This record gives sequence, C-alpha cells and structure tokens, in this order.
Amino acid sequence: MHRIILICLSAFITISSVKAQNKDSLIIRRIYNETMENGRGHQWLYDLTENIGPRLAGSKEAGTAVEWAKQKMIEAGADTVFLEDVMVPHWVRGAKEKGVILEAGGNKQEVQILALGNSISTPKEGLTANIIEVRTFDELEKFGKAMVEGKIVFFNHPFDEKFINTFEAYGEAVKYRWKGPSEAAKYGAIGSICRSMTNAIDDFPHTGAMRYIDSIPKIPCVAISTIGANLLSKILKANKETKFFMQTNCEMKDSVLSHNVIGEVRGSEKPNEYVVVGAHLDSWDNCKGAHDDGAGIVQSIEIIRTLKAINMRPKRTIRIVSFMNEENGLRGGQKYASNMNAKKEVHVAAMESDAGAFLPLGFGLNMTEEKKAKIRKWAPLFLEYGVYDFSREGAGADIGPMEKFNVPLMGLHVNSQRYFDYHHAASDTWDKVNKRELLLGSAAMGAMAFLLAEHGL
Amino acid sequence: MHRIILICLSAFITISSVKAQNKDSLIIRRIYNETMENGRGHQWLYDLTENIGPRLAGSKEAGTAVEWAKQKMIEAGADTVFLEDVMVPHWVRGAKEKGVILEAGGNKQEVQILALGNSISTPKEGLTANIIEVRTFDELEKFGKAMVEGKIVFFNHPFDEKFINTFEAYGEAVKYRWKGPSEAAKYGAIGSICRSMTNAIDDFPHTGAMRYIDSIPKIPCVAISTIGANLLSKILKANKETKFFMQTNCEMKDSVLSHNVIGEVRGSEKPNEYVVVGAHLDSWDNCKGAHDDGAGIVQSIEIIRTLKAINMRPKRTIRIVSFMNEENGLRGGQKYASNMNAKKEVHVAAMESDAGAFLPLGFGLNMTEEKKAKIRKWAPLFLEYGVYDFSREGAGADIGPMEKFNVPLMGLHVNSQRYFDYHHAASDTWDKVNKRELLLGSAAMGAMAFLLAEHGL
Repeated sequence: MHRIILICLSAFITISSVKAQNKDSLIIRRIYNETMENGRGHQWLYDLTENIGPRLAGSKEAGTAVEWAKQKMIEAGADTVFLEDVMVPHWVRGAKEKGVILEAGGNKQEVQILALGNSISTPKEGLTANIIEVRTFDELEKFGKAMVEGKIVFFNHPFDEKFINTFEAYGEAVKYRWKGPSEAAKYGAIGSICRSMTNAIDDFPHTGAMRYIDSIPKIPCVAISTIGANLLSKILKANKETKFFMQTNCEMKDSVLSHNVIGEVRGSEKPNEYVVVGAHLDSWDNCKGAHDDGAGIVQSIEIIRTLKAINMRPKRTIRIVSFMNEENGLRGGQKYASNMNAKKEVHVAAMESDAGAFLPLGFGLNMTEEKKAKIRKWAPLFLEYGVYDFSREGAGADIGPMEKFNVPLMGLHVNSQRYFDYHHAASDTWDKVNKRELLLGSAAMGAMAFLLAEHGL
Repeated sequence: MHRIILICLSAFITISSVKAQNKDSLIIRRIYNETMENGRGHQWLYDLTENIGPRLAGSKEAGTAVEWAKQKMIEAGADTVFLEDVMVPHWVRGAKEKGVILEAGGNKQEVQILALGNSISTPKEGLTANIIEVRTFDELEKFGKAMVEGKIVFFNHPFDEKFINTFEAYGEAVKYRWKGPSEAAKYGAIGSICRSMTNAIDDFPHTGAMRYIDSIPKIPCVAISTIGANLLSKILKANKETKFFMQTNCEMKDSVLSHNVIGEVRGSEKPNEYVVVGAHLDSWDNCKGAHDDGAGIVQSIEIIRTLKAINMRPKRTIRIVSFMNEENGLRGGQKYASNMNAKKEVHVAAMESDAGAFLPLGFGLNMTEEKKAKIRKWAPLFLEYGVYDFSREGAGADIGPMEKFNVPLMGLHVNSQRYFDYHHAASDTWDKVNKRELLLGSAAMGAMAFLLAEHGL
C-alpha cells in the first residue's frame, strides 16, 4: 500500500501548483512533439548496433563506438563534446565455446553455452566431469565437499514468474551467475554452469559478469541456454552419472585506454551546474546491445538534438555521458565520479537509461526524501505521457559511483517484461526495438532533464 | 489535469477501505500467481494462430476456430459451454491482388496492396487511371469533380506521431479507410487507395473494414503499404501524369451460419447474474490475428482455467464469450446483445480485450459516473501489478451493442505503441506476442471479473 499513498500524495500536493507548471507543461509538450515527429534515435541505433555491432570494453569496436558517439553528439548540435580517459579491462572470449552433455549410455548432445564475462578458460582441451545440479546455495551447501569435489556445479535457478517486475526475478537469481563459480569452488568444484538469466525459454545463452573471490581457486564458468538447462536437468534426473564436457577459450588481457564520451548543452545562467543523462556505450561481445544499452545511448544523445531543434537552453548545463565499461568493470562510471569530485563540479542530479527501450512508466529515485518530494511535484506534468510511477528506487550502474558524493540519482523506469528475453544474448538486436517506445523514453528523460536544469533540485 | 485528479481521488477514497480489501487482495494475488506460473494462453495462441491461422467470418477456418474455442473452454474446466448462432457476412478476397505504379516515362513499379474488407472487385482485367493524392477530405473537396472524375483517389494520411496513445492517431486517420471510397466516388473517382493505418514504415499493407454509402456508386478500394504510399507520393510529386493499375478479385457472398462460443464459471449464489469477458475469434483473411484478437480469446479462456486451478467460484457467473465477426460486420456482438435482452438476462458488466497482448495499464470505463466511482475504489488493488489507469473511456467493439441495454462496459487498456505495427497485416503473428504481457492481461481481467462477480457493481 506504500506506493499507492505516495502516488496519491504526490498528485495531491501538486494539484495546487498546476497553474505554475503551465509554462513547463508547454515546453514538455514541445520536447515530446519534436522527439516523436523528428527523432533520429532509431536510425542512430541501427547504425550503432548493425554497423559497429558488439563493442565490449577494450575491443576495437568499442573504440569505434567512442568515435561514433562523439560524432553523433556533434551532429546533434552539442555546444561542447569531449572524451574522458578511462583504463578498462580487456577480456576476450577467443574461439567459440563448446558444451556437450555426455549421457551415461554414450549419447552426446551439444548445448548452447557462453563463458561468463571475466571467467578464466578451461584447459585447452576442455574438461569433462560429473554434474551436481542445484537450485540454491543452500542445496549446494547440503551436498558439501564430499559430493561436489571434482565435479561441475550446475546452478539451475529459473526466474520466478510471480514477480511482476522482472528485475526482481533477476535480482533474486543473478547471484548464481555473479558469485556461483566461487561458491562452487569452495567445495572443490572444477567448473560451473549457470542457467541463463531470462524469462524466455529459447536457445540463446545469456552471458554476464561474474567475479571470483580472491581466496578461492578460480574455476571456468559458463551460461547455458534455458532450453539447454531444461534438457540437462531432464537427462540428469534420468541418470545422475551424466557427464558434461565444456571448453572455453577466454582470457583477461592487460587493461587498455578507452573513454567516456561527453556532450553538453550549456546552461544559460548557471553553466557550471550539471544535470547528467547517461547510458553505457559498451555491450557484451556476443551481443549487438540494442536494448542494453545502445537504446540509452541514442535516447540521451537525442536530447541534445531535441533541445537544439526547439531552441531551448535551460539555465543549467545538461551533460550527456556515454559511459564505457559498464558490463565488466564499471570503470567509466567510477572514473566520471572521481573526476567530478576532484574538479568539485556541482551536479544537480544524474539519470540513466539502462533497462531497454521499452515503454517508459516512471522514474526510480535514489535521493533524500526531501528531493524525492520535489521531483514528485513534477509528476502531474508527466501523466499525460503515461509516465506515472515515481514511487520506486533504482537508478543505473554507471551513475552509481556518484552516490557517495551525494548526487541525487534517477533511473528511467520502463516496462520490464521483455528486457530479459534479450539481455546479454545474441538476440538483443535492433529489430526488437520499437521506434516509438525508444523515442518516448528519450522525451521523458529530456523533459526531466529540462526541469532539473531549469529549476534545480 | 482531469486524469490526475481522478487518479488521486480514486486512490484517496480507497485508502480507508484498504483493510476491507485485504481478502480480495489475497485472491487477486492467487489469480496472478496461478496465471503467471501456469498460464497456458501462450501455447493456446500458437495453436490458434499457427495451426488454424487466418479465420475471417464465414470461412472454413472460422468454423474450425469455433470448434477449437469450444474445446479449449471445456479443457479449461468451464461448467457450461455452448454455441450461439450468428449469421455472418461472407466476403472473400479471391486471388492475390496487384497494384502497379505506372510512371509517365514508362517505368513500372509493383507495390504491396490489399483490397479493403467489404470492397467490391475491380473489373476482372483490373483498372488503370490517373491519381489524385489527398491528405484530407477537405483537400478532396477542393479538387472537386472536375479534377477527380475518372481517377483513382489516393488518401495519404499518415498517423500523427504526436499522439501518445496510438489509438488516437488511428481514430483520426481511419475515416479515410472506412468512408474514403464513398467520399471519393461522390466526385466521380473510379477507385481509391488508402495509406495503411500504421505507425510502421514497412511493406505490409494493412486491410480493414470499409462501408459504402448506399446512394453513391461503389468503387473498388485498396490499402497500400506505407513504403508503397511513400514511393507513390514521391513519384506523383515528380510527375502528376503517373497512373496506377489496380486489380482485385473480391466478392461478397451470401451470409452463412456461424457462432459465438460461450463458456461459464457458474456463480455460487447468483448464477443468473453475469459478468461477461469477451474478445473476438475472427481475424482478417490475410492475417493470423495473434494480437488482433487471438490474444483476447486466450486471455479470456485462461480466466476459466485459473479460477478452476485456485478453486475459486465467485457469487455471480463469469461468462467468457468468443465473439464472431468483429472485423467486418459485428454480427456476433449484435446477436449476443439482442439475445441477452430478449432473455432478460441480468448483466453486471461486460469487458473486452481487443487492443493486443501488450502490457496492461488500466481499464477503460464506459458506464455511469456512479459505477465508475465504484470501480475506482478497487484501483489500489491493481497498482502493484502496474494497472493504474482507470481514467479513460473505451471498452470494445463486440460488447458495444450491450451499451444500449445499459450494461456497464470496460476495456482492458494496454500499451498501445506496437499495436498498429501489426494490426490487420500479415505481420500479426505469434512471435510478436510476449508470453508474460499476454498472461498479465489475463490476470488483470481475471482479477476484475472476480471483483465484479463477487461484489456486483
């Protein structure tokens, strides 16, 4: 009931100030009209995802994407465009991985796997072992060292379909990807397999970052498609002596120099106060990253184009940041925050779009209650655009490091139902993005950025 | 601002009754959990759309769909299942149509066209004529008989992207499809072409119903894909002497007997009071009708399955109706309403899902203000499921004929952004339907049907 009361109160408080908001309302209408009628983001996204393609931090394509973003910000009419140096990890997958179920009776079935990001490689010739299937860490603990040692642990934790917001299902399940390998290695496992983090039952393995605990031996780890996971589980139920062969070829190389890309619409009165709108430019290497997060990149750059097209320059500077290396290091976000702090730059707020180009429904707010209340006074301005939910928390990974410097953070909250169908998988392509949903997200953030830059927070 | 106040008030009024709603809240949670975890609708939809396929009223496939729906209602556990006789029009497209731009210089370019539903055919050998392109009826009137006579009128009215809800863009544009042919014929046109009713720029022509005015000569009319429309417009701008060749082969045959399909969960205390949840079983002949409206069919039948699975029988009867012939006649809806009236059946309310299997956001309400207020008291029960908007009007075509008998009407209001990408086009296929969005719509309607059947209105 908490959320209902919040929404009610925020709407109630604001009715009295509706008239004062009429001018803002007209500007927001112009932002929406310009974006929906003339938005370029959908074509830009095609270019980024189909012509540049996968762009993991440290790769040649990530470098091309940096130049591309810089060029797009210039095209969009930014007053200033510059790069910010960031050293990023350089993990490479190497040759295509292979995963094979070796049935006790001799039958072999190849399944779709992908090494998890940051994983070490298997031995060159691959590894073969018996399998322990678990749903939870508790089950793993019950099996204990006696049962697990020398085996491959198969974390088969499906998304809980009862969660209405799929990010909650992800939040519950992703620990088996992120720390599963070290948890398995604690008990002597020699490899781990993780069910893909998705609601979809299909044959795309979904990769994603994992992190080893330093004190525990590192073991190779892979994601398996949900079809593969269901098959493996079924075969294991029939015969526990089933083995698995896995072969990966990945390697963590030396860090390399990359960049955040920054473009600004300079403020008319307080140009040295900043409103950040960001997203991440990198994607996984197996994936063109249309929803994650090419969408956020073009949505944010579009704001520059839109404000220029309607000749609108708010009082404070709107700074569009295309962050590097969200997926496997977050170095771009960390560098931006530490530079901001070192330069003593005043940041009004930072917002991010990194939940896909789906229908925008609200903004997540990570800030003091006082500032939340101020944002919620603007909520009625967004209702006619279907943006109604200001009750949640949740901002974005790239802007997260600014939190410790007390920057109020926001995240574009969108329809979550389809996001994990494509997340970190080869299916995250441009054709899955609806042009209008993409542009609506840009307009919502553009409107919010305008309010923040005009009125402060 | 009207909508903001409504939402606020509805939430405000209801906070006091939150405790009384706790029992309902628990039942709604069970409805959602059961639907999301065990829902069958997505597989059923595959069967209906891929194995039966297009099912225009009067066709053999529409008959197969009637048997299919009856069977699915039995499988779902309905207490009673029966058919209601309906005579339906039987329009057939005949052989594939052909549309060719004949450039003045002799170049020919074939474009994608489809006869509009209910259209007469061109002469067997097709027809060729000069073209008058207009954006509006006003422009047509200005051209007048002198310019229009003997030509083909090309209504090139694009969707207005500034409308946030795409149904408003459709509402503005669809008159050029529905009555464009007769308007053109008034001035002596011999054929008409209508830009497809869609936001998408692609090569699928979108058909849909048109109606001739009796006193005006009937002329053949077609929809052209948006890519085709843009090409034709460009060529016409370069040379007004461009001609168009169109050939269609459609025919209105004698009406045939078909059926509405009705399945019930009988009420425990007032079984002779009904809550209707409906959708339409027919689709256009060129289109598998996944979003329009196979989705509504399986969402509504799923409600039977869900209530049976959780062993929930509300006081009044929930009646699931799969209506026949929404697309080109509405005979099923008309017959249901007139039978209901003749039998003096008490109907608490009727609701429909016919806006695609997209994220549910609210319910449109067509009823007295008093009854709207009662529904809005339930709004807080839906907020945690993302169903927040009870401020709109809009129910559904099939249940529309009940309005004159004072039945309160409701429509499932969903994200409209993608609907017209597929509407009445060959692209409206199962793979465009997200399983969770489909099931969320079923759960929202199931929850609302439960409240109506339990508490009345």
